[in-house]
Amino acid sequence: MTATTARPVLIRSDKLLLGGAAALIVLAGLANYGGWASGLGFVLSAAAMSVLAALVGLSVEQLGDRFGPGATGVLQSALGNLPELFICIFALKAGLVEVVQAALIGSILANLLLVLGLAFLVGGLKHGTQKLGSERARTIVVLMMLSVTAMAIPSLTYHLHTPAETHEKTFSLIVSVILLGLFALSLPFSLRRDRSDTAPPPHEKEEPRWPIGMAVGVLAVAAVAAAFVSDWFVTALEPAMDAAGISEAFAGLVIVAIAGNAIENVVGIQLAAKGESEYAFSVVLNSPIQIALVLAPLLVILSQVFGLATLTLVFSPLLVVVLVLAVMLAAMIALDGESTWLEGATLVALYAIIATAFWWG
Amino acid sequence: MTATTARPVLIRSDKLLLGGAAALIVLAGLANYGGWASGLGFVLSAAAMSVLAALVGLSVEQLGDRFGPGATGVLQSALGNLPELFICIFALKAGLVEVVQAALIGSILANLLLVLGLAFLVGGLKHGTQKLGSERARTIVVLMMLSVTAMAIPSLTYHLHTPAETHEKTFSLIVSVILLGLFALSLPFSLRRDRSDTAPPPHEKEEPRWPIGMAVGVLAVAAVAAAFVSDWFVTALEPAMDAAGISEAFAGLVIVAIAGNAIENVVGIQLAAKGESEYAFSVVLNSPIQIALVLAPLLVILSQVFGLATLTLVFSPLLVVVLVLAVMLAAMIALDGESTWLEGATLVALYAIIATAFWWG
Amino acid sequence: MTATTARPVLIRSDKLLLGGAAALIVLAGLANYGGWASGLGFVLSAAAMSVLAALVGLSVEQLGDRFGPGATGVLQSALGNLPELFICIFALKAGLVEVVQAALIGSILANLLLVLGLAFLVGGLKHGTQKLGSERARTIVVLMMLSVTAMAIPSLTYHLHTPAETHEKTFSLIVSVILLGLFALSLPFSLRRDRSDTAPPPHEKEEPRWPIGMAVGVLAVAAVAAAFVSDWFVTALEPAMDAAGISEAFAGLVIVAIAGNAIENVVGIQLAAKGESEYAFSVVLNSPIQIALVLAPLLVILSQVFGLATLTLVFSPLLVVVLVLAVMLAAMIALDGESTWLEGATLVALYAIIATAFWWG
Repeated sequence: MTATTARPVLIRSDKLLLGGAAALIVLAGLANYGGWASGLGFVLSAAAMSVLAALVGLSVEQLGDRFGPGATGVLQSALGNLPELFICIFALKAGLVEVVQAALIGSILANLLLVLGLAFLVGGLKHGTQKLGSERARTIVVLMMLSVTAMAIPSLTYHLHTPAETHEKTFSLIVSVILLGLFALSLPFSLRRDRSDTAPPPHEKEEPRWPIGMAVGVLAVAAVAAAFVSDWFVTALEPAMDAAGISEAFAGLVIVAIAGNAIENVVGIQLAAKGESEYAFSVVLNSPIQIALVLAPLLVILSQVFGLATLTLVFSPLLVVVLVLAVMLAAMIALDGESTWLEGATLVALYAIIATAFWWG
Repeated sequence: MTATTARPVLIRSDKLLLGGAAALIVLAGLANYGGWASGLGFVLSAAAMSVLAALVGLSVEQLGDRFGPGATGVLQSALGNLPELFICIFALKAGLVEVVQAALIGSILANLLLVLGLAFLVGGLKHGTQKLGSERARTIVVLMMLSVTAMAIPSLTYHLHTPAETHEKTFSLIVSVILLGLFALSLPFSLRRDRSDTAPPPHEKEEPRWPIGMAVGVLAVAAVAAAFVSDWFVTALEPAMDAAGISEAFAGLVIVAIAGNAIENVVGIQLAAKGESEYAFSVVLNSPIQIALVLAPLLVILSQVFGLATLTLVFSPLLVVVLVLAVMLAAMIALDGESTWLEGATLVALYAIIATAFWWG
Repeated sequence: MTATTARPVLIRSDKLLLGGAAALIVLAGLANYGGWASGLGFVLSAAAMSVLAALVGLSVEQLGDRFGPGATGVLQSALGNLPELFICIFALKAGLVEVVQAALIGSILANLLLVLGLAFLVGGLKHGTQKLGSERARTIVVLMMLSVTAMAIPSLTYHLHTPAETHEKTFSLIVSVILLGLFALSLPFSLRRDRSDTAPPPHEKEEPRWPIGMAVGVLAVAAVAAAFVSDWFVTALEPAMDAAGISEAFAGLVIVAIAGNAIENVVGIQLAAKGESEYAFSVVLNSPIQIALVLAPLLVILSQVFGLATLTLVFSPLLVVVLVLAVMLAAMIALDGESTWLEGATLVALYAIIATAFWWG
């Protein structure tokens, strides 16, 4: 808007990211089609996934800056989970239902315990006690709590042996439709988003550098590439799990969950390191909302529409219980209004304990 | 107290209410004794119950205004649940234990999720973000949380297969006596109630219009009528359930719970629509306290004293789990200090999901 | 530091405590070796334990005042639970695993419900609504919540029949090591403790009266005596339980838990009576943190290292559920920021209901 000096379309970090993505995709493809060792293929495709996730994020940002912060948020909601969506679809195609279920819950746990804990730890050690709790952050916490609880009801219904037990599929579908409806309702709320408390502070605000065509083009290419790489990732996952003796639950809960959210996680921790605790908190808590309101219900519906291995919202009992506990704890920490590095360390320890519980196959 | 111009004893809305009540009671009576279709009888007696509840509320208000807001609150606590008490007694007499248990929990859930959600939704859409959280509202939240948890302990004890499992009746009686004792203790707290944060703001305050004799008379007649209509309601409930293929749990959780609290519910939502979010919140949260501290324990004791179908505080596992979750969520939303229409929509969606879980018989 | 008039080394209450401790230890010893009635021996050794706990507390205080409030806190963390540690070790030696497990959870419940409730009740009745919620108190609440939840994970893992079920011992050991690690991490936090909000207000601050040698000496003698008396207490416990028809769970949850924390409990309630609600709250909430981060994990490790009856962190289902509920309730009451006597009464009632649930063997 204001007259600025001409800025380059591609800055150094952009070039690095584009180049790295291209290189990793080629290597991961070679590993997949060339029959390289599954461990190596797995690591390469995981790395390619992470870089692609970063690329999607960057092009959405370049695109969204033209339409205001609200639109960017909505685009991010819609596209940010694209890589995870692809991984889950291919995993369902391969019949790895338990991996997908554990990955969905694991993404939420990783955000609420591991990433939040690391953000508190890093932020607290560098900047002392951090303030949380702007009004908007509190609204996000409440929405997160409510949407995750709603997602947990089919599991409770099933494991507590109610008559609805035998209607697992139908009930999961109904709940999925309601959750997607809530997501649709939340769009105007997100679009009216006030930049001041959920976006990076003004001094970090940048004008879009990429022309629209380039942003759309990169996004399209990255999305298509993400679909391919997801396939290779899932193909390499099974032999890697067998080789390392890892259970399906642990692979989903820890490995897929962390690989699928790698970039978002790093962003949250970086923001905390810069002292932007409020913004870090928003980023970290927004992800569980998207998983509960979009990713999980979408996968349930897609699995039944496209005849993949049937995914329902009936998760294993321990997954549901730790999910509800983690949500309650995160909510109370948020309502507390402050964070210290010791709270961060305790959150990380709690994550480690829960991950250990799923180690044994 | 101040010199006012003469005001009429009966204003237009009073006449309408008294006339409507009389007409509905006569129709419901005809339906019951005349062998009308059970569906029609059920609807008529439900409507008559609602109008009688409103009448009890109005006469208590006219009576209570003479003794100050504290006394009104106590009278409302004591008499406001009268219609629900009658329905539950007749349902126990008819052996519908599951209906009664589901109705007790359902009343709490309907208040904490459906009514609170609608109040947030309506208030938020009309007035933007609403403030909650006066000191008194917070005390009510804590009491609600503690009393509902206390009521849930016998169920936990039973379903977790402790040795106390075989002492279900005795344990429920002991807990009921403790809960009633807590209610007695809370009376001085309620009597010292400060009008400013739990009663309608001054501009809505009205002088009592009815002479004492009329208020007492209407109250007595309405109470007796409520007893009769409750009987007819329960009589019509069973064939209506069968005809519509509704399970006992769903009938209690949704239909009886909503019909028995219809007026209170409407009042809470109306207050929110007027922007009186604090007062609406108090009204909505007060009802679960009364159910946990008075209605449920009283019914347990009455069922054993009068040899009705034995009611204990051992509810079905899903009822207890959703109860504890709903209470925690409502408490955290209250401590959050604000409400938005989106939170309201999410609460309503959560209620819909829980109700669906009980749909299948 | 400032020039004060010479103060006596031993004031009247010190003499009383030392004399009382000596007398009670002798009597308890006679009861144990002289074969007195087990009920009398039990009461005498319980009384001796309580007085020894007070003595340990006093000598730690006299010692700690030389090194600042932080060091006192750490010393109290390390030594304050010494009597309870001894009792649990002897109980494990006697094979009373269920008593030890119930005592660990019971200590937390007694603090969070009974003692907190009595503190609110006494403080509220004497001083009206009490304020809580300094920043430090909130941090303690969050730590308490997180550490207790971490301690609960092995039980959840076991009772929800996950594959980790068969690795009960290993998993409990891993969790114990992590919890002790968290305790070590929390030491710098405790050492930097700001006197202003966790220590008694200045007018109660006293200069150390005892010479260092005496403080160390009393501490050493009290610790050795505590070991002996713990042995006698446990020896008398079993026949006393049989005679009174009390279950292992109830004996641990109520009797051992209250006897082992008698002094701390009295201190918390006394502080509330003086109107020091913030400090009372800190004292009461600190104890569950120590149990979860030190006492429980230490006992798990010791039981396996020294070949006592194996203690794991797998508690009975009802113990775990009421533990998690109590922690959530206490946390929300703390975040609420205020307490009233009615909340106190409700907490006490909730404790009574839970204790009753464990009454039946």
